[in-house]
Amino acid sequence: MSERFTKGLETIKEYVTEEEATRMIESDALADTAPDLRKMIIEFAYGDVYSRPGLDAKSRALVVITTVVTQGEAPQTKTHIQRGLHAGLTQTEIVEALLQLVPYVGFPRVQNALTIAQQVFAEKNE
Amino acid sequence: MSERFTKGLETIKEYVTEEEATRMIESDALADTAPDLRKMIIEFAYGDVYSRPGLDAKSRALVVITTVVTQGEAPQTKTHIQRGLHAGLTQTEIVEALLQLVPYVGFPRVQNALTIAQQVFAEKNE
Amino acid sequence: MSERFTKGLETIKEYVTEEEATRMIESDALADTAPDLRKMIIEFAYGDVYSRPGLDAKSRALVVITTVVTQGEAPQTKTHIQRGLHAGLTQTEIVEALLQLVPYVGFPRVQNALTIAQQVFAEKNE
Amino acid sequence: MSERFTKGLETIKEYVTEEEATRMIESDALADTAPDLRKMIIEFAYGDVYSRPGLDAKSRALVVITTVVTQGEAPQTKTHIQRGLHAGLTQTEIVEALLQLVPYVGFPRVQNALTIAQQVFAEKNE
Amino acid sequence: MSERFTKGLETIKEYVTEEEATRMIESDALADTAPDLRKMIIEFAYGDVYSRPGLDAKSRALVVITTVVTQGEAPQTKTHIQRGLHAGLTQTEIVEALLQLVPYVGFPRVQNALTIAQQVFAEKNE
Amino acid sequence: MSERFTKGLETIKEYVTEEEATRMIESDALADTAPDLRKMIIEFAYGDVYSRPGLDAKSRALVVITTVVTQGEAPQTKTHIQRGLHAGLTQTEIVEALLQLVPYVGFPRVQNALTIAQQVFAEKNE
Repeated sequence: MSERFTKGLETIKEYVTEEEATRMIESDALADTAPDLRKMIIEFAYGDVYSRPGLDAKSRALVVITTVVTQGEAPQTKTHIQRGLHAGLTQTEIVEALLQLVPYVGFPRVQNALTIAQQVFAEKNE
Repeated sequence: MSERFTKGLETIKEYVTEEEATRMIESDALADTAPDLRKMIIEFAYGDVYSRPGLDAKSRALVVITTVVTQGEAPQTKTHIQRGLHAGLTQTEIVEALLQLVPYVGFPRVQNALTIAQQVFAEKNE
Repeated sequence: MSERFTKGLETIKEYVTEEEATRMIESDALADTAPDLRKMIIEFAYGDVYSRPGLDAKSRALVVITTVVTQGEAPQTKTHIQRGLHAGLTQTEIVEALLQLVPYVGFPRVQNALTIAQQVFAEKNE
Repeated sequence: MSERFTKGLETIKEYVTEEEATRMIESDALADTAPDLRKMIIEFAYGDVYSRPGLDAKSRALVVITTVVTQGEAPQTKTHIQRGLHAGLTQTEIVEALLQLVPYVGFPRVQNALTIAQQVFAEKNE
Repeated sequence: MSERFTKGLETIKEYVTEEEATRMIESDALADTAPDLRKMIIEFAYGDVYSRPGLDAKSRALVVITTVVTQGEAPQTKTHIQRGLHAGLTQTEIVEALLQLVPYVGFPRVQNALTIAQQVFAEKNE
Repeated sequence: MSERFTKGLETIKEYVTEEEATRMIESDALADTAPDLRKMIIEFAYGDVYSRPGLDAKSRALVVITTVVTQGEAPQTKTHIQRGLHAGLTQTEIVEALLQLVPYVGFPRVQNALTIAQQVFAEKNE
């Protein structure tokens, strides 16, 4: 494991549960086809970028939720709302961030994202 | 002036200088063609949305910068970096938010946005 | 109920059946998470925007179908084709509008939208 | 000249002035690099698609303005607002179509498009 | 059958199996609603564009895979990865093309596309 | 200089002239604001991704041109057409790749990209 990989794994723990972190290390859905993708995500996205100083984890999560919602990426919207909650964003802050997008992306993408957020909140509250 | 317009103007002052707020009320570049657009922006975007509780002004500015950069909207990137600084975001926080976007939108949009950010910072520091 | 909400509900009736209008008032899928979204849609989208003079309901429906297809938003494509039919667009006009998009967005988004349109037409003709 | 090219040129005259139609036939800015692009636009876009029955020229122009604004394509926004006016859309109808987009794409793209529309209207009214 | 339709069908055979080509001619999922769409795809996309000289079939397939992945179009990503394999792209070349997109579109769209690619490869290898 | 930086610089030389490579090392337009962006581009984009085996430099350049054109990124379209020519793509191959995009993104983005390509070709042929 490279130093960047180790740093990435450490950083990921601010955004996911222990269980999820273990799952990310031990299994990789794309292992057969593109094992290097997971490596790039951990080393580059988490090791090089998320780990930078100057912006706290909550704000980084907010930025990432915003960009995936703006792009209309449903699976990543779910993942990053989960990670945002883990990083310390409250449900209210996430809902408000999504409503704040209405004047900038319109209702459709926000409505789709709030539907996903509601599912994530319900699963968490169960 | 409707109550929502008044509330919008009040909210805008968290994001722009007094001078800019006055300019927004007294002159409107689209007055001849679509005078209601400015009214909608002040009443709906600022009066109804930005003014909501549950997320602070700095975080709202971060969300808005992120969405306009993700969409590749150059003029709005400039405007909302200026407003984010006024709302209390530091230059470092803005740069870090833009770098945080690299793993989610790629280098081109981030590079274009950082070029605009550098211009805004230089104008402010003059 | 604010005046804008009342105006919005009145305007919506040009685009949806009585049954659907009642459903929109009485139940809200996002009531737990973001009850204000529905309020914003009715007050702002329908009360302030759709209700404006100067463009007829059929043309407004055409504009909305076009933008959601261009953005690749599948659930909204279904909703707004249904509303366009209710507002008086013929099936032929909708199909022609989608084919008119081929030279501007390419085949994939048009093909996905026509597949949705065919389902909506079939449900309506049942 | 193929039959489709002739049909395309005939159809274009619903959207552009005589002068512009002549310019499109006699000069081609991309003649050196990709002369077939103009041929494709005239034969396919105008000859095959715009010329279809079932939707009038004004509605086709409305669809095209909407899609290029949604995509944020500035040069095409200018061109197709000019063509829409020639096809019979009024300035009011174009402004209303752009405002109708606010709840679906947000303020930035609409504001940029209205700025372009205002320039086109001013040039026409000179 | 027009000459362009014949040329289109011939060209398609570089990208699909005999079985798929027959299916494309004999059945059309959108036959009830928009029979001209299939005609346009075969005549224009394959007859006029794919059949052009100057770029080989493998490179054309690479361009098409790249654009549909960049646009986040899931059904077309599947279709065009299948066609790319038929045109002679190797599984490695397709995976590398998708990874090459990470610095330009970010991880989410690439991850979604690789998941689809893995399914296509698995079906093919069965 | 890290090993990845060195590898990135080496890889870049397949895509740019010696002069341009020197310029990239010695000057950095964003040095004041975000010096790490250039580092990320060289280390991650070129060192980790472009340098991978399994797809030749010409094909990688084709993928990158396609994605930036699909996204409508004008400055990057210019840069990557220049790099594609340096990597060995012919002017004809680039024009054909752009025309191949018409059925997938429509005429506007292709027309804008061909206008840029024509400028790049003219500068090179001077």
